[in-house]
This record gives sequence, structure tokens and C-alpha cells, in this order.
Amino acid sequence: MDKQDNNGYVPGLKGIPAAESKISFLDGQAGLLTYRGYPIVELAQQSTFEEAAWVLINGELPNTDELTRFASDLRANRRVKYNVRDIMKFLPIDGDPMEALQTCVASLGMFYPGQERMTANGVNADSEFVEQMIIKILASMATLVAMWERIRRGDDPILPRTDLTYAENFLYMMNEREPDPVEARIMDACLVLHAEHTINASTFAALVCGSTLAPPNLVVASAIGTLAGPLHGGANQRVLNMLDDIGSVENVAGWLDQRLANKQVIWGFGHREYKVKDPRANILQDLLEQLREHRHGQISPLYERAKELERCAEEHLSPKGIFPNVDFYSGLLYEALGIPRDQFTPIFAISRTAGWLAHWKEQITHNRIFRPTQVYTGYEPRSYRPMSLR
Amino acid sequence: MDKQDNNGYVPGLKGIPAAESKISFLDGQAGLLTYRGYPIVELAQQSTFEEAAWVLINGELPNTDELTRFASDLRANRRVKYNVRDIMKFLPIDGDPMEALQTCVASLGMFYPGQERMTANGVNADSEFVEQMIIKILASMATLVAMWERIRRGDDPILPRTDLTYAENFLYMMNEREPDPVEARIMDACLVLHAEHTINASTFAALVCGSTLAPPNLVVASAIGTLAGPLHGGANQRVLNMLDDIGSVENVAGWLDQRLANKQVIWGFGHREYKVKDPRANILQDLLEQLREHRHGQISPLYERAKELERCAEEHLSPKGIFPNVDFYSGLLYEALGIPRDQFTPIFAISRTAGWLAHWKEQITHNRIFRPTQVYTGYEPRSYRPMSLR
Repeated sequence: MDKQDNNGYVPGLKGIPAAESKISFLDGQAGLLTYRGYPIVELAQQSTFEEAAWVLINGELPNTDELTRFASDLRANRRVKYNVRDIMKFLPIDGDPMEALQTCVASLGMFYPGQERMTANGVNADSEFVEQMIIKILASMATLVAMWERIRRGDDPILPRTDLTYAENFLYMMNEREPDPVEARIMDACLVLHAEHTINASTFAALVCGSTLAPPNLVVASAIGTLAGPLHGGANQRVLNMLDDIGSVENVAGWLDQRLANKQVIWGFGHREYKVKDPRANILQDLLEQLREHRHGQISPLYERAKELERCAEEHLSPKGIFPNVDFYSGLLYEALGIPRDQFTPIFAISRTAGWLAHWKEQITHNRIFRPTQVYTGYEPRSYRPMSLR
Repeated sequence: MDKQDNNGYVPGLKGIPAAESKISFLDGQAGLLTYRGYPIVELAQQSTFEEAAWVLINGELPNTDELTRFASDLRANRRVKYNVRDIMKFLPIDGDPMEALQTCVASLGMFYPGQERMTANGVNADSEFVEQMIIKILASMATLVAMWERIRRGDDPILPRTDLTYAENFLYMMNEREPDPVEARIMDACLVLHAEHTINASTFAALVCGSTLAPPNLVVASAIGTLAGPLHGGANQRVLNMLDDIGSVENVAGWLDQRLANKQVIWGFGHREYKVKDPRANILQDLLEQLREHRHGQISPLYERAKELERCAEEHLSPKGIFPNVDFYSGLLYEALGIPRDQFTPIFAISRTAGWLAHWKEQITHNRIFRPTQVYTGYEPRSYRPMSLR
């Protein structure tokens, strides 16, 4: 390695291709996001999380038999071992739910051994093991998130049901009541919308971990750890805190002016990739409108502040290509569904697990271990000096 | 993103610089590895794990006060919360120790909150929090590995002692007896030798996870998940299994001929970077010789097979630049210290935690989130079709 050569070093590998992938495509100019070619807007409106996960993982829309079997396998695998519930009992109740989630997902594989069925070169990966682990992990995610919510409150976890969809069952386990169809539809669409978004930091972490042929639960656990960082997940939570801080609809315009004057961040606005309004934001806003109608206008006062903020921001930020992103309305939806703010990122993780596992499966069939180089800027070789000579 | 442009895509990012770093330097032609400029051979012979960790994390040799305080802080932080011990009790005893380790390290941060003390831009990261977490995590690693060994055997964990070095205390917790000075010296040198090795897959995973400003225990947990993959950790374990399979010294030559004829891998030989004998391999072999002398020749019969294998391989492999690597002798040493084979990679993780945390600390001061691009090779946008139209 030539120490002096830093040609080609790009912090954060921005713009450097790190994978060849057929899974998702993003055109930030056109506001287009596709999963396996299917536009996210169509999937959110017409598909389900189960089907979208199948599409991401397997590449094509399922036929009736395939979808029935996949959804049924997912339902049959919703329970987790009681040991995992006991592990949760020893975690501090005021701890970050993302750390609880990483802890439990890391432990999952110990209950489902079979890593040796993935061969060392990966090419002959046992597809049955791969399929089983994908089902097991994806099915367990919602259970783990809901279980931690119950346990940290001191309540008994609610056993998953097998007669509900993925989204319905998650809300049922969280709230101990079946969601109404509008609530279930919203949860389902949110899970579809967050399931995949090309190579972001957590997906990249999954690729790096998976490239050593680590078992898939460790791959997902590594991705969860990465999503837990405030620069990646958590923005929708901060949007709500911001709307709280603003205090009222009347305050919005003045708050925004001051915020922009101070060059402070407006949470939920702007995206590295999208130069038009994030297609996912439009869908979420439609869902919020549906929910408001369904509830006869009874919805959080934060929604009016959010709309006013979008209206005021349009003048200042839209000309710069800064629009509401996926985080701007998702938190309002989750809160309306009775979900605590610090569980928003774990829900993101539930959904994104479909994308992480799709990338993991895609990669192990033509795997190459990640081992980039570094630009060394440290000391030339020098001699160790014993303490007496320092 | 231009879908057709795959210029610059290199599988595994081989040869692509992903970080600027002052921590370690490797010259594979010269067989030189330095930590902060200090050659690994000198550190392994004259330094200790505590001091090497300090050097990696802080950049310079410590003075007496610095080393005394660092070592004393590490000793004071060896105990882990009893909750973590209880969590271990619910993990399957036949599970992979690396999964147990990732599970427990992921949980650690819940017991030591303070993530909010790292600011969102990372530049003003609270250095006290950073230093405390480095100590806490590094000190806990040996305790966690030894505790899992005891618990999976059904034995009470041994509480760490504060009057022993890091290496001594680890062997004490594993074996319930104080190591003799030669054993302690070997363990210490092994920890020094494995602590850092530029940007390999697990260190890269730590960088990717850390770049979202995730808390450091999640960063280390993500790296552990990555090290758990058979393409990264575990080779020293496979060396011993291979020496078992060979069966006797007399079988070595024939076994090797057949293995080479079949183009099968010889575990513990060759390294992506080193074109001469790995400097760490020489040190390990010296230590094995010392141990043999210390034990009056009473050492595993596998050692004679290993030496014979190296001798036979010299003729065939050395001309191709393939020599014994760090994994070739380390497993023999660990086994001689009474350590089960599936704990070799967790010990690697204990040691490498020093390097992971050094990279984490280096990165958060000038952080940029990792977000490389992809080369999209999938479908053009296509319309969703409801089930009735498929």
C-alpha cells in the first residue's frame, strides 16, 4: 500500500458503487422508488407488507400459491422462544428499544442452529436454510418489538395470533386490541414504504457483515445497530418533538423564519437523494387524511402544525429542492396508532428487515468479502521505548 | 444514478480506500505491521495488552501515570451487571459463543446510558463519555467471554479479580486458577498480536455502524457479528481440526501432496496481504517453543504435526509467497492454555475490541455517514398487477 496515495479516497464512500443489485432503484430527480421495478406508490396502495417482502426477496410478484405459503409460513413463525422473553426481563426498562432489539435478534440464531449448512464459499448456500431463516427472522421482528413494549411497561406480552395479517398482528400485540381496518391499512402501508431504499448505511452494514458468511440473524443484528445511530434512524421521532416545541399553528411561521435565519435543521425536510418531494411522503400524507376523516377530524393537533410548516416551508425551501421526506408524516401516523415515539425506529427495523434479508440473499450467491483499503496518515515505523526511557 | 454506469465497481471494494487512518500500517512485502508506528514484534515482546490498547486508542506510548490510570480503570470495570449473567442463563448452551457475545455486548449500553452525550454531528462528542465507554466495553469483553464459558458448562462464573493483569485475569476467570507466568505471557502476547490489523471486514463494519453515531456497544456488537462469519474469524479453530484429521506426523507429507493435488485449502497458510511470513506467526511459534520448554516437552502432539506441515509446505508453497499466517500457531497456544476451540474467535474479539474502539474514536471526530451507491442491474419500472391479472 502506498502511504502517500490518497487518490480516490471519498469520505463515506459517497458515490462509490459498493454492490451490484437488482433489488431497488431510486431516481431522485423523478421522485421514483421501485422495488424490483414496481413503483413504491403502486405497492403501497395495492400490495401488502407480506407481498412486498416476497417481491424484494424473490424478485417477482408471487402467484397465489406462493403468497399463500409465504404468508402462512410467516404466521406460523411469529412466536419466539420463551427464553427470549426471559432475556428481555433482565434488560433495563428505560434502555433504548433499539439496543433491546439488537440484543434479542443476536440471540435468535442460537435457538435455530444450522450455520454449517451455509458452506464456506457461499456459492452452495443451502437454500432451504436460507429460506427458513428469512421466514424466522422476518416473522420474529414484530413479535420482538411488541414484546419489549409490553415487558418494559410491566405487562404480559400478548401472544401473536395466526389469523391476522403481519400489520394487524403487530398492532394487536402492541395495543392488546385488534386494529380497525383503516389503522391496519396504515400500518401495512408504512411497512411497505420503509422496507427498502437501496444501499443506505444499515443495508451496507448488512452487506459487510454478510460478506463474511455470518449467520443471518447476526447480519440483521449488525444492521439494527447501524440503524440505531441518530444520523440514520430516528428522524420521525425528532419531527414530533419539533412540532411539540413549536407549540401552536400560529407559532409556525415565526419559528421557521428564526430557524432558517439561524441555519438550524428542519427535521423531516430534505433528502440526500430526492430533489423533488419524496414519493413516500405523499402517500403518508394521504393516509393521514384518510385517518382524519375516519376519526371525524379527531387527530393530533400536531398534524395542523405539520401542514402549516409544510405550507410555510414551501416558499423558502422548495426552490432549493428541499421537500418533506418520509419522516415528516410517518411519526404522526405511528403516534395516532398508539405507538410510543422511541418505538418508531424499531418499527423501521421491522420493515427494513425485508430489504436487509433481500440484500443478504442476493449477496451470498456471488459473495466477496469486503476488505477495502485505508489511506494511512500515521507515523512511520518507530522503535518501542520501555517505560524507563520515556 | 446512471443505471448503465458500472465504472469503478469493485466487488468487496478491494483496493478502494474507505478510511483515512493513523492507527495501523501494514507492509505485506516487508512483513511489517505497526500499531501507531510501533512494530508488532516489539510490542508483542516488550509491551502488554493494556499498553498496546492505550497506544492504539490514544496514539502514543503512555507515561507512567497514564498507563497506571488506564490499567486501573480497566480493572475497576471488569464486573458486568448481574442482569447480563442472567441473560446468559437463557441462551442455549450449545449455541455459538460469538452469538452469545454479540447478544451481551448489544445489551451493555442499556446499562450505561448516555448516548445523548454524543451530539448529532459528532464533532462535539463528549470525550468523557467516549473514554468511559471505551473502558467499560474493553474491560467487559474478557469477563463476558469467560462468563459464557462457565455458564454453558453449568458452572458458576468466576468473579474477576483486580490484582491481575488483563491476560492473567482472563485465564483465571476461564480456568478457576491463576495462570503461571509463562501462560500469562503467552495470553498477553496473543492479545497484543490480534488487537488491530487495518481495515478488515469487522473493522469496516464498525466504521459503517459508527458512522451513524450509534452507541459504541452497538458498534462493537456489529463488528462481533461480522467477525463471526467463517470467512473472517475461525481459521485457527480449523487449523486444529485439520491437524486432528491428518492423524500423525508420518501422514503429513502424503496428506499435503493429496491436498495440493486436489487444490484444497491448507488452513493457516497464506494471507491476502502478506507475501512473506506473517510477522505474527513467528512470534507465536517462539511462544510455543517457550511453552514446550517450560512444560519439559509436554505439549500437544498436534504441534509436531504443525511443524512437519510447515516444513513440507515450505517446498511447495513458499515460492508462491504462501507462508504460515497468524492462525497457524495461535490455536495450538490457546488449546495449550485450556481454551475450547469454539472460544478462539471470541478471544480474537476481546483483543480486536481495542482496534475497533480505536477506529471508532478516530472516526467520530471527523465523521461522515457511509452511503455508497449501487450498480442497479434490475428491472426497469413496470406496473404492479393485482393477483387477478397474474
